[in-house]
Amino acid sequence: MGATGAVGTVMLRILSQRADVWGEIRLVASARSAGRKLAVRGEEVEVLALSEEVFDGVDVAMFDVPDEVAAQWAPVAAARGVIVVDNSGAFRMDPEVPLVVPEVNAHAVRVRPRGIVANPNCTTLSMIVALGALHAEYGLRELVVSSYQAVSGAGRAGVETLREQIAMVAGTELGTHPGDVRRAVGDRTGPFPDPVALNVVPWAGSLRADGWSSEEMKVRDETRKILGLPKLPVAVTCVRVPVVTGHSVTVHARFQDTVTVEGAREIIATAPGVVLFDNPAAGEFPTPADVVGTDPTWVGRVRRALDDPTALELFVCGDNLRKGAALNTAQIAELLAAELS
Amino acid sequence: MGATGAVGTVMLRILSQRADVWGEIRLVASARSAGRKLAVRGEEVEVLALSEEVFDGVDVAMFDVPDEVAAQWAPVAAARGVIVVDNSGAFRMDPEVPLVVPEVNAHAVRVRPRGIVANPNCTTLSMIVALGALHAEYGLRELVVSSYQAVSGAGRAGVETLREQIAMVAGTELGTHPGDVRRAVGDRTGPFPDPVALNVVPWAGSLRADGWSSEEMKVRDETRKILGLPKLPVAVTCVRVPVVTGHSVTVHARFQDTVTVEGAREIIATAPGVVLFDNPAAGEFPTPADVVGTDPTWVGRVRRALDDPTALELFVCGDNLRKGAALNTAQIAELLAAELS
Repeated sequence: MGATGAVGTVMLRILSQRADVWGEIRLVASARSAGRKLAVRGEEVEVLALSEEVFDGVDVAMFDVPDEVAAQWAPVAAARGVIVVDNSGAFRMDPEVPLVVPEVNAHAVRVRPRGIVANPNCTTLSMIVALGALHAEYGLRELVVSSYQAVSGAGRAGVETLREQIAMVAGTELGTHPGDVRRAVGDRTGPFPDPVALNVVPWAGSLRADGWSSEEMKVRDETRKILGLPKLPVAVTCVRVPVVTGHSVTVHARFQDTVTVEGAREIIATAPGVVLFDNPAAGEFPTPADVVGTDPTWVGRVRRALDDPTALELFVCGDNLRKGAALNTAQIAELLAAELS
Repeated sequence: MGATGAVGTVMLRILSQRADVWGEIRLVASARSAGRKLAVRGEEVEVLALSEEVFDGVDVAMFDVPDEVAAQWAPVAAARGVIVVDNSGAFRMDPEVPLVVPEVNAHAVRVRPRGIVANPNCTTLSMIVALGALHAEYGLRELVVSSYQAVSGAGRAGVETLREQIAMVAGTELGTHPGDVRRAVGDRTGPFPDPVALNVVPWAGSLRADGWSSEEMKVRDETRKILGLPKLPVAVTCVRVPVVTGHSVTVHARFQDTVTVEGAREIIATAPGVVLFDNPAAGEFPTPADVVGTDPTWVGRVRRALDDPTALELFVCGDNLRKGAALNTAQIAELLAAELS
């Protein structure tokens, strides 16, 4: 579901690359895209228009559609016996829907009273595998997170907007006078409240209570649910940056126990799905331009807080369309396929 | 000193705009730039090559030169009776050199046993005026800071590098495959360890002990010195972003007392040199593209931490070449001019 979107496109690539545990794969999108042919597993498959009947005989459906579409259609599919893995925000905080990151809480996938399993938000996913490994050892007590989020988190429109703006500012002296980038970009800000080229924008999502953005609340709520720490203090500021794909976050993580940099590095280096890339003397730290298109969570800049022996500072990067969306969805679906087989 | 650099260029503009408290203004640079004519206060002034004699008869010298040049030449000027306002890192942590932000600790300028007054680092300056005002009311107890630093913090070479890379990536599909931006940019990374176009780079400055960057240590050490809080816990991660000018930081600030958003907003709105720009419902939050070229520190996204009534979250933006460098230097020099007159 959502086969033609930014995440859907990556999902087809991922399904073509991973061990093939699937029989028939049906591609579904809105009526507008029906009839298009897309490549998956080396075949051309025609896109079907969304209807109740497309779910007939299906075991697992992977949804990447807007919240309101998921809210309407996931229960329809579930009522027809399909297990839905949903990447929207519609069900993530539903207590009857598990929120699953296979490396962290694979066991949670087994209890799904509504027939729906939720996939976390891309920003949560960009850091949670590394944090889960550190939590298992040291016991997480507090998180302060700042994000550097790529425009593809806002879908194809986000990517097109950045590319268009980059073309507008290339070869100019823009970025040195108040509002000059804004005047050049005009109303071509796409899905963003401000220009993103030559800029950073401290906003993602919609407005929630007390000045928080929906993206910030998702990171807090989902981190608590996945780690099973419903009262974990989490302070988040989400910022959009002019990167096509690859979310980064800085993390200040305080633990129950005293930490060591050597211990933290070993946990990160040996955690499944995580790569330690941390040697500043050799210029080694992860950046989105290098981790885009890769599967793992990349961790660098590992430091112990100078004033608190229980706190670590990290810089974490991941591909927001792969582990941040399509890959984690595929991993959950594979857990379900193993259970069904 | 350093009249032809990125900060020097802005300094000439600032000296031309502010109340003219100066007699003769001498422009000094390396021998390479000597003889060039630059505009200041509506006149064309010839650039002099650095020598001991250029300081003869001078009351105040503003230095914006590399650390090693400042370390050598500031004492030379001071020995000739000149008060030096130095924007390098050479003297900032010297206990006999005051580190001054006029809105926060103007009094400190009066005690300068070495005849040198230091100007803080641009990243510290981007947030310290707002933090100083909040500290005066609530009593700062802990800081967690993440930066979004503009390339002009690395001087003209930083700006030229970003502009060149933007031209390389404009009109392409780069940013979607591992390392594609790096391959396109090749070795044209200028003063940065990685490409900055379509990327963010978690590094600024040189390597210090235990994996910290010099920029991160500066923010911690200088914040403590300016606020007179030598043991303040400060955790910082510095990240370079593809912005020409305008440093941004996210701040998680914990105080002695319980805070309220209304109280914090009033302190910020009434603090000298600070603008509150914080109405997400109307799309209002500061971004570097809008604050570049302006004097104040802009503060938005003011929230109280959801899990700690003593902590605030902020997003702060300032022009790293103006308040972050030239403007603060000029303000210090004006304090000295008032004292001398």
